[in-house]
Amino acid sequence: MNKYIYSVDRIYFVNVPRNHDLLEYLIDFIDKEEIKIGFINVIGSLYDVVLGYYNHESDRYEENRLRGIYELASGIGNISLKEGKPFIHLHVVLGTREGVAYAGHLLSGKVFVAEAVIAKLSGEPVERKRVSNTLWLWK
Amino acid sequence: MNKYIYSVDRIYFVNVPRNHDLLEYLIDFIDKEEIKIGFINVIGSLYDVVLGYYNHESDRYEENRLRGIYELASGIGNISLKEGKPFIHLHVVLGTREGVAYAGHLLSGKVFVAEAVIAKLSGEPVERKRVSNTLWLWK
Amino acid sequence: MNKYIYSVDRIYFVNVPRNHDLLEYLIDFIDKEEIKIGFINVIGSLYDVVLGYYNHESDRYEENRLRGIYELASGIGNISLKEGKPFIHLHVVLGTREGVAYAGHLLSGKVFVAEAVIAKLSGEPVERKRVSNTLWLWK
Repeated sequence: MNKYIYSVDRIYFVNVPRNHDLLEYLIDFIDKEEIKIGFINVIGSLYDVVLGYYNHESDRYEENRLRGIYELASGIGNISLKEGKPFIHLHVVLGTREGVAYAGHLLSGKVFVAEAVIAKLSGEPVERKRVSNTLWLWK
Repeated sequence: MNKYIYSVDRIYFVNVPRNHDLLEYLIDFIDKEEIKIGFINVIGSLYDVVLGYYNHESDRYEENRLRGIYELASGIGNISLKEGKPFIHLHVVLGTREGVAYAGHLLSGKVFVAEAVIAKLSGEPVERKRVSNTLWLWK
Repeated sequence: MNKYIYSVDRIYFVNVPRNHDLLEYLIDFIDKEEIKIGFINVIGSLYDVVLGYYNHESDRYEENRLRGIYELASGIGNISLKEGKPFIHLHVVLGTREGVAYAGHLLSGKVFVAEAVIAKLSGEPVERKRVSNTLWLWK
């Protein structure tokens, strides 16, 4: 059974500063705080976002570039190890000025406002293993 | 006041295997692990999804069938008891290849990739009670 | 570094009664329960919703009014202090009868069904500070 068991160590609230790339900032943060296993939720407002859609035939992420500023209506994901380093898998839902929603795997996006709640877990960290050119999963 | 109080027992990371129905697999999992109260977040990629929209006039879930593969941009929900057994109430947001979002109550959907974070809580489990033909709520 | 560290005190399950404004009810709830720091997820069904989109040029929330009933496919957010009182910052994704998604900052919305999972955290509560006419952020 593909299951891993943890307990909650602590919860961080992080106000990500404006104009940083959201994932780059958060990965730097969890690296410094030695968060190797965790989960995250984040809301706010992002601009110049690239959403990924995994195409299983080509085994590649196709990119949808969204210019302008969007509400970050939802960002949820998990933290685990990939090639020995803390890695964040984050999926997002964005809202336009008219309230229309876009959704996908977050490849990149700049922060206008981002309030992240990060749970640091304790226990033996699970490591992602490569299962194809692009996909790395918990085995 | 309709409130129930719990503490966090443990957190599970679950890599749901490909081609399983997401809800069937997770319900089987929480049944085996005796998770009677909890909360969940799940991201990944689903195919052949059926979203529900509750119509309060007919007291029925209307079904929207989505063929093809979607990013599972968000799956959040709760675990409680229904007719004495662990039950998952899960709502999802899906993203198409173009990043367009669909959203609703998850009735069924097959897993391409699904990474679930499940919190097992301790305390007296709340039981859903039938309030109409279709709706079962915490009282 | 803009970070604040907490531990989990307890988890509440709340069945929000029909026809209440979701945010008003939840703010009243966390006030009574003295939840000054926390995080939340909520799913269900809302009607007469007003979504906000923050326009950084005018420094105002533009409003998108959605009439009718929607699946509340996702509601995630955080709890912290604003002007000395517990405050909920909640972003939502809604689904129409056809499964189409809308998303944004929740300004108001009435409950048809709402199941909230609220984590009460312990530690020194962070207080929002005014950074513009409209925005209050963790500093």
